[in-house]
Amino acid sequence: MAAMKPTATQHEAAIRETDKLWLEAVTKRDAERAISFWSDDALVLPPDAPVIAGKEAIRSFVGGAFSDPNFSIRWVTDEVHVSANGDMAYATGTNQVTATGPNGKVFTQRGKGITVWKKQADGAWKCVVDIWNSLPPDSQA
Amino acid sequence: MAAMKPTATQHEAAIRETDKLWLEAVTKRDAERAISFWSDDALVLPPDAPVIAGKEAIRSFVGGAFSDPNFSIRWVTDEVHVSANGDMAYATGTNQVTATGPNGKVFTQRGKGITVWKKQADGAWKCVVDIWNSLPPDSQA
Repeated sequence: MAAMKPTATQHEAAIRETDKLWLEAVTKRDAERAISFWSDDALVLPPDAPVIAGKEAIRSFVGGAFSDPNFSIRWVTDEVHVSANGDMAYATGTNQVTATGPNGKVFTQRGKGITVWKKQADGAWKCVVDIWNSLPPDSQA
Repeated sequence: MAAMKPTATQHEAAIRETDKLWLEAVTKRDAERAISFWSDDALVLPPDAPVIAGKEAIRSFVGGAFSDPNFSIRWVTDEVHVSANGDMAYATGTNQVTATGPNGKVFTQRGKGITVWKKQADGAWKCVVDIWNSLPPDSQA
């Protein structure tokens, strides 16, 4: 008897659990673990910066962020939408980044963004696109 | 005999054609036609602004942009990735927006972004999430 295919609810739960582990790895500043949640060909699109394409460029990006003693990020994932076949999904959310600015001053910026996910051959969900931008300082979103 | 299901290549071609018609509608400043390419529950996430959720909010956003005589946008769609079942897709691209700034001066900003698409019950592809952010002025991306 064939294994039953996961339902949309199960796919969503798997993505939310993966996302939670990702945030834990980033919070622990575990760079190699953190970058493992992006696919090898993932695109990271930070505001006011060029496209960061692929695992090596992402490793450098994460290493740069983690080298700032003032860097921290937290995010909240809102909606997760999974494709009918359970191979692609996207999630919406908000985030808050604290870091040292070019002027040496520590800033905190709230943002909103989406992540696009693809299920890999081994069944793991990986982030294939990661993009965010700023919320206005007074926004309730 | 059942109709053959469209292939991934056919889905991608349908999205690229839809995207082309969307850009034409925006270039002609045809607001109602332009907003028809977003789903009723679409999210537009512009930089430095709150989330714009749903058709009425998007209508107001587009109306605001089109009321600026200096507003123009062009975009180039790069990759299109379609889910296995042909119900969800995402596209990457770059854009260039010209508009009147808060200080009354006309500015041009280059950006990068992604659109997420869902195939509707009638077979039409609609944009469900639209997010972009700035590229640095000297970026080649």
